[in-house]
Amino acid sequence: MAMALALFNAEGEPNVTTNRIAEELEISPGNLHYHFRTKSDLIEALFALFEQRMLELLATPDERQPNIEDIWLFLHLCFETIGDFRFFYRDLTDLCARHRGLHQRFRGILNLSMDTARGLMTGLADAGQLEADRQEMSGLVRNIVLVSTCWLAFDQVIERDGEGRPDRAVWQVMSLVSPYLVGEARQQLAALATQYQTGF
Amino acid sequence: MAMALALFNAEGEPNVTTNRIAEELEISPGNLHYHFRTKSDLIEALFALFEQRMLELLATPDERQPNIEDIWLFLHLCFETIGDFRFFYRDLTDLCARHRGLHQRFRGILNLSMDTARGLMTGLADAGQLEADRQEMSGLVRNIVLVSTCWLAFDQVIERDGEGRPDRAVWQVMSLVSPYLVGEARQQLAALATQYQTGF
Repeated sequence: MAMALALFNAEGEPNVTTNRIAEELEISPGNLHYHFRTKSDLIEALFALFEQRMLELLATPDERQPNIEDIWLFLHLCFETIGDFRFFYRDLTDLCARHRGLHQRFRGILNLSMDTARGLMTGLADAGQLEADRQEMSGLVRNIVLVSTCWLAFDQVIERDGEGRPDRAVWQVMSLVSPYLVGEARQQLAALATQYQTGF
Repeated sequence: MAMALALFNAEGEPNVTTNRIAEELEISPGNLHYHFRTKSDLIEALFALFEQRMLELLATPDERQPNIEDIWLFLHLCFETIGDFRFFYRDLTDLCARHRGLHQRFRGILNLSMDTARGLMTGLADAGQLEADRQEMSGLVRNIVLVSTCWLAFDQVIERDGEGRPDRAVWQVMSLVSPYLVGEARQQLAALATQYQTGF
């Protein structure tokens, strides 16, 4: 599956046929067909791998009081996973339209992402590091998940050399949180931003 | 072209053939072919209409000191235009990959959107209604254009009954600006948000 994933990521899933994958693997199309009856089966198997990594990741950050560096690192891991399966994120609407089952599961990942984002933001608020009223909090949480989900596609449309670098994505998401931070967290983010701007 | 636009919006452009469009128009495929040699020609003609509306819209808000109600209305007009041509926004990456010329022109629209967003935010800052440092301003401007561009696709993936209502989109974008507002502008947005929540 690593070969199929690499080809889908590099050339876009609609542009890669199963024959092409078999060719790159130096096996017969019949042999590939034996393992994955259709391209949809292959896409679903890759989605299951992606889903497992995302669900594991989204389940982790609950354990202790969050701080800005933890959140930065957590987002970095999220964007690495998104980058590893970036073909899903390039044509999300198309993917969801063509595979109804995946649409539901992807919606599940997004809703869980909202819960995780809300948990992290509430954790910061409880620790006196973030100030936002109920309405601001709900807008913030949705924007965090929207920007995280769409960043890659947007970057590829707007940048001439959009490489989808995770640190740029993390910064873009953290800039949503930044105006709500108070106290120590605000200084921590400013320090991380400086490191980020100098390329670490 | 109105028929083609309606079909593309309702069913997604890849799912609508030129034969289907001819059938709905009750003309022969040959007749349609006479006007638009390929589906790409038709897409390009629709893009030219969309581009013209967006460029006119993006050129307007420079004339006087912006206030929150003007910006809210301006965003509403933008999202109405996006809604009218929503098939472009559903599969932006795919569209840009298949039509290199449109990719460049779409990037032009996004860059102009960034200039307009920056102009509006700087206008608020100059009027003492917004406080943001250089780095915050640059993150804010990019997030405004990212959320505006991706809102429709994101809403369709996450909502069961995503109707892409402009006022929800406007609110999502204004929630990016909200924490930077000070003074009168902050109260104006709060009043608009209340109206928005009660459905106007």
